[in-house]
Amino acid sequence: MKAAAHPLGEFELIRRFFVRQPKARGAAESGVILGIGDDAAVLSLPPDTELIAAVDSIVAGRHFLPGTDARSIGHRALAVNLSDLAAMGATPAWATLALTLPSADAHWLERFSAGLLDLADEHGVALVGGDTTQGPLTVSVQLLGHVPRGMALRRDTAHDGDLLAVTGTLGDAGAGLAFASGRPAAIASEATAALIQRFDYPSPRVQFGLAARGIASAVMDLSDGLAGDLPKLAQASGLAARVAVERLPLSDAMRLAVSASQAREWAVAAGDDYELLLAVPAARFAELAAAASRLNLRLTAVGELQAGSGVTWSLDGRDFQPACGGYDHFAQASTQITV
Amino acid sequence: MKAAAHPLGEFELIRRFFVRQPKARGAAESGVILGIGDDAAVLSLPPDTELIAAVDSIVAGRHFLPGTDARSIGHRALAVNLSDLAAMGATPAWATLALTLPSADAHWLERFSAGLLDLADEHGVALVGGDTTQGPLTVSVQLLGHVPRGMALRRDTAHDGDLLAVTGTLGDAGAGLAFASGRPAAIASEATAALIQRFDYPSPRVQFGLAARGIASAVMDLSDGLAGDLPKLAQASGLAARVAVERLPLSDAMRLAVSASQAREWAVAAGDDYELLLAVPAARFAELAAAASRLNLRLTAVGELQAGSGVTWSLDGRDFQPACGGYDHFAQASTQITV
Repeated sequence: MKAAAHPLGEFELIRRFFVRQPKARGAAESGVILGIGDDAAVLSLPPDTELIAAVDSIVAGRHFLPGTDARSIGHRALAVNLSDLAAMGATPAWATLALTLPSADAHWLERFSAGLLDLADEHGVALVGGDTTQGPLTVSVQLLGHVPRGMALRRDTAHDGDLLAVTGTLGDAGAGLAFASGRPAAIASEATAALIQRFDYPSPRVQFGLAARGIASAVMDLSDGLAGDLPKLAQASGLAARVAVERLPLSDAMRLAVSASQAREWAVAAGDDYELLLAVPAARFAELAAAASRLNLRLTAVGELQAGSGVTWSLDGRDFQPACGGYDHFAQASTQITV
Repeated sequence: MKAAAHPLGEFELIRRFFVRQPKARGAAESGVILGIGDDAAVLSLPPDTELIAAVDSIVAGRHFLPGTDARSIGHRALAVNLSDLAAMGATPAWATLALTLPSADAHWLERFSAGLLDLADEHGVALVGGDTTQGPLTVSVQLLGHVPRGMALRRDTAHDGDLLAVTGTLGDAGAGLAFASGRPAAIASEATAALIQRFDYPSPRVQFGLAARGIASAVMDLSDGLAGDLPKLAQASGLAARVAVERLPLSDAMRLAVSASQAREWAVAAGDDYELLLAVPAARFAELAAAASRLNLRLTAVGELQAGSGVTWSLDGRDFQPACGGYDHFAQASTQITV
């Protein structure tokens, strides 16, 4: 590595691309006593809250395609963590960034930091720490937030008889990834563009996570696909799950772009939607649906939980066997980007 | 990537290698309400404290040599963050791990997690979140801790007239790295082995950081070498620094292994020592030294801060010009491992 190829030092790089002037919010409101620039950040939690901490990394060739717009990469790196906090019913507050990148390319960094910081601003998140290293592109974000004491939404607290519900529509991101990768070859259209947009710019359901507090009995986010994630919620809660595949919510774009059976397959098993999966007592489903409606968010009951174990799928009343079981980075890489 | 080559799934991998049974400490003492296994961790801060958050990544070929024992890599990944918390005077409490690795090799993971978790146990740190991804080896640890409200040690709060002090001995890790890399060719000896050990297993000065609270006026840790780090403390505090190079503390191993001028060069500019650099009012230096002594830790006054800006080095009363200015990952890679 030649020094001349990397004119920006680490300190300058963080200052130039990742330190935004604080908006109207002051230290008191943001809880940031000391941000980027010291050995660590100093933060103040609101009274009577518990701290929520999530971490997720995204890696070139695993979570995004080579050549992806850096703005999408920055957005995604924060969005996947916001989705985790949404699933806890937490208010996101502070993020730290560990960024490994091959070279300090100013154009790339401008796009990347804009994607990350615009989403951070939207959700009131302050970037309070960063670390940059030269190496293969890897982005790791740690996100911190808070919930009122005892109010965090967990995945091990569902009850026998709860309905299973999902936000938004399922499978869109998987479809978008497939189209962006050129498989299946698709005629470029508004529908495929909308699906690719859903993959590139996931919308974490933070506001709905807050609204679900005190109503839902268990929540998790859908990052590895329903077939990959639902067994985790069912197992953590010690229950069996049944899903009626014909009820899985599909977007208009999905219906326009592919066959019903392909749409179903993606809705069942494709990852990266970052919708929420919720268990809710049947008597309180209407209340949860009203909360979703106030946020212009679709909420669909897709199944139920009952005593037992395992996940059973049906399609129009008949047994249904998903083609694949969700994404696992080390065991089943074939369902997502492979290297 | 073939599934058969990676028999362990991500969930199983985290469970098997990174979840230790809690020791005597229960949830009440550790503050862990919900650890690994949900979308995020739920943590409880002690009353009247502020949250401290640090993040640091280590990358193969940048922070450790190819072929390094995974135990050392796991130790280092946490140690560099513990050192940041030590520099804030914080009590470390919780860590999250973002691990990108080429393959899920059980032997490597056993060594890595032992190195990380043994050091975590030593400092009462609970691993509360993890994320594993397939890709080039990158380890990012986020460490959370706390300080009594208003008591965090910062780097921008030194005063005109403060003494500059350092813990331990300087340059050992840089010497160890040089010997481990085979430059200069050295006769294997107890001295070179001790220096290599200092590079492979840094000892973060957490207990001393706690002891320095309320005595030191500013603190930072030495990760990029005195010549790289001191200018940051001086600039943050708006002061000039003077260092008497002949006072820089050298280990017996260093004195045995290399010439005085080589030792001096490493003590001034080599990184990775993870000692603390402190500014302390002259009238309180004895108090700080006594605290160090109780921890069997050396504390050496090496210079002072005064009105002005910049850093001036002297050797036996004459001006001294350091050969290089400390380590920066993007601008001056030549002072550490290069790729």
